[in-house]
Amino acid sequence: MREVGILGVGQTKFGELWDRSFREIGIEAGLEALVDAKLSSADLEALYLGNMASGTLISQEHIAPLILDYAGLAGRHLPSMRVEGGGASGALALHQGYLAVASGLYDYVVVGGAEKLTDVPDATATQITASTADHEWEVVFGATLPALWGLIARRHMHDYGTTREQIGQVAVQDHEHGSKNPLAHYRNKISLAQVLDAGPIAEPLGVLDCAPFSDGAAAVVLGPMEEARRRSETPIRIAASQVACDSMALQHRADPTTLESTSSAARRAFQQARRAPKDVQVAEIHDAYTIAALVSLEDLGFVEKGKSGPAFAAGEFAHGGRVTVNPSGGLKAQGRPFGAVGVAQVVELVRQLRGEAKERQVPNATVGLAQDVGGTGATSVVHLLERAN
Amino acid sequence: MREVGILGVGQTKFGELWDRSFREIGIEAGLEALVDAKLSSADLEALYLGNMASGTLISQEHIAPLILDYAGLAGRHLPSMRVEGGGASGALALHQGYLAVASGLYDYVVVGGAEKLTDVPDATATQITASTADHEWEVVFGATLPALWGLIARRHMHDYGTTREQIGQVAVQDHEHGSKNPLAHYRNKISLAQVLDAGPIAEPLGVLDCAPFSDGAAAVVLGPMEEARRRSETPIRIAASQVACDSMALQHRADPTTLESTSSAARRAFQQARRAPKDVQVAEIHDAYTIAALVSLEDLGFVEKGKSGPAFAAGEFAHGGRVTVNPSGGLKAQGRPFGAVGVAQVVELVRQLRGEAKERQVPNATVGLAQDVGGTGATSVVHLLERAN
Repeated sequence: MREVGILGVGQTKFGELWDRSFREIGIEAGLEALVDAKLSSADLEALYLGNMASGTLISQEHIAPLILDYAGLAGRHLPSMRVEGGGASGALALHQGYLAVASGLYDYVVVGGAEKLTDVPDATATQITASTADHEWEVVFGATLPALWGLIARRHMHDYGTTREQIGQVAVQDHEHGSKNPLAHYRNKISLAQVLDAGPIAEPLGVLDCAPFSDGAAAVVLGPMEEARRRSETPIRIAASQVACDSMALQHRADPTTLESTSSAARRAFQQARRAPKDVQVAEIHDAYTIAALVSLEDLGFVEKGKSGPAFAAGEFAHGGRVTVNPSGGLKAQGRPFGAVGVAQVVELVRQLRGEAKERQVPNATVGLAQDVGGTGATSVVHLLERAN
Repeated sequence: MREVGILGVGQTKFGELWDRSFREIGIEAGLEALVDAKLSSADLEALYLGNMASGTLISQEHIAPLILDYAGLAGRHLPSMRVEGGGASGALALHQGYLAVASGLYDYVVVGGAEKLTDVPDATATQITASTADHEWEVVFGATLPALWGLIARRHMHDYGTTREQIGQVAVQDHEHGSKNPLAHYRNKISLAQVLDAGPIAEPLGVLDCAPFSDGAAAVVLGPMEEARRRSETPIRIAASQVACDSMALQHRADPTTLESTSSAARRAFQQARRAPKDVQVAEIHDAYTIAALVSLEDLGFVEKGKSGPAFAAGEFAHGGRVTVNPSGGLKAQGRPFGAVGVAQVVELVRQLRGEAKERQVPNATVGLAQDVGGTGATSVVHLLERAN
């Protein structure tokens, strides 16, 4: 398998994009990535599209050829397909694009992630979010996704003494980071008091512990690493791409406070890249619910099990800390357009590793990690990226 | 890229399986394929699942880890993902599984296709079927998928003199073939008079020109070709796997009676396999609507453009004809569980090429072709299989 580089990145603003349709945001992100890669659409050989729920959200399945079509590429009859794995759909599409280039099948592929979430009422979006949990064993009994993550939070508090304040600090930091991101859904800073006083969603989680429903799209152009080196002074290499799955229902896990899919994918990824957590300066991780960030930091190996709460509250994962986590603002502040998230995480990492992240820049970042999660962790995808100059 | 073999196949009965859930049929097909491959679940390394619309049909996204989980494999944290491209989802999943083994990434992967369609009313299923056409440019104006294929039929009749009777003959032959298939949704034979007298759906197509809504699942186990040779006296090789896309909306095509995605995928597939249409003895092709079979036969290169009607009516594609088309009964009689179709087509081909198709057996079949289509042809996937002993 040959080395794969990221040649170009693009991303729309995340938020309530009521003036633009699914196909429009998909094309906007893809075109920006193509221009950034200094390629023309005539160079592209395939499209992999991450999307979670276009069927329920916009009554449209079969969306990969739709995006190709409206990008003006129908006449070339390229292969395209959608890849889905709940909230991890974007990262799964990237994994498939990575394999397509690594195997030598194609030289240049575009990987997109897109979701149009705000065309349905919030109650519908909540139901759709729950469709990534186990419908027959969780959802029909009334569980929503925040309710399940609420259970994880309670258990983490019980087992490790994690406090409500430590969990809430994730949202505070995300909004602080998001305030510097022009593409973020939310750019307002919030205080810990606001997080703690916000209306309950699924206790202990309140409304400010939960990422918003957002529209948005992101795209990356992949190619052989020698082309990345030829085209850029700060070429970016995909050092690892790993997927792992676990049981759908939270109740079937030995330990509800451990995402074994994340720890498995991370272990394999660090092995593939011959790296360790200490080599990473910047990470984009899953924080659809604040507690998810704390659990993920432990399972990715950035902090000992049960110690994430105090470490996070002490600023170890803020700008200037040992690993800057979610400089984009994360799902909480940058936004959560399901299928776009995993691709957007990698867009942010590329900008960080190239040194193009402006106010958000993590100094001297050379290795970045992205972790995308579906449901309560039935799927996790971990990517490691390196600046390779 | 190394050679890939199909080591095992499995398939549930297609039909109204109201006594079984999505996860149950998925596991039934997968287990049969695994036993057929003489492997244990401990040998598997990844799952690719073709499914079109589980979100709208059973309120469940994120179904690939669901199937892994209920197959008892959650503890191994294997990678799994769903692949979607409308009605071509099953074949797209097979394409991804093929690449995963061909690239050397994995040795043994299972590719499944599953859909549970009959848990929703027919009107809902019709809407979901239409979600594979262009929602904003076709469906909101009232077009259903049979209406679009009806337009194709009218134009084919106008341009080439194809008759209503020739189109109806596809359904007659499918039911004749399906009568010999114990897994078929419909096993009753029908007459041409019945097809012509059936109630209209979208003229000229009547209810007997349209494939049913079915539940069902199919699975194949893929592995390195040398393993296929070691384990079977009739090893089956995937000689080609090709995907091509086209515009979503029928109105944007230069010629509505030509599926350019099919002709592109077929051309690439014959080139990859170093074969020609004349080498094929058995084919499973897209006949969700009778006219689709005629158009597909032309675009696959089995018959000259415009000549499919008379050739089909003359029995050239029946048992004993030059290519036996849809010995399974096709989508029309075997059934149409969207995401399972593309995998089931290959299951039938493997049984034919191994000489295990009993009453349906095509004598001396050594090369088979499968063509799976999404929407009105925005996606086509063509696989070529060979008996390699």
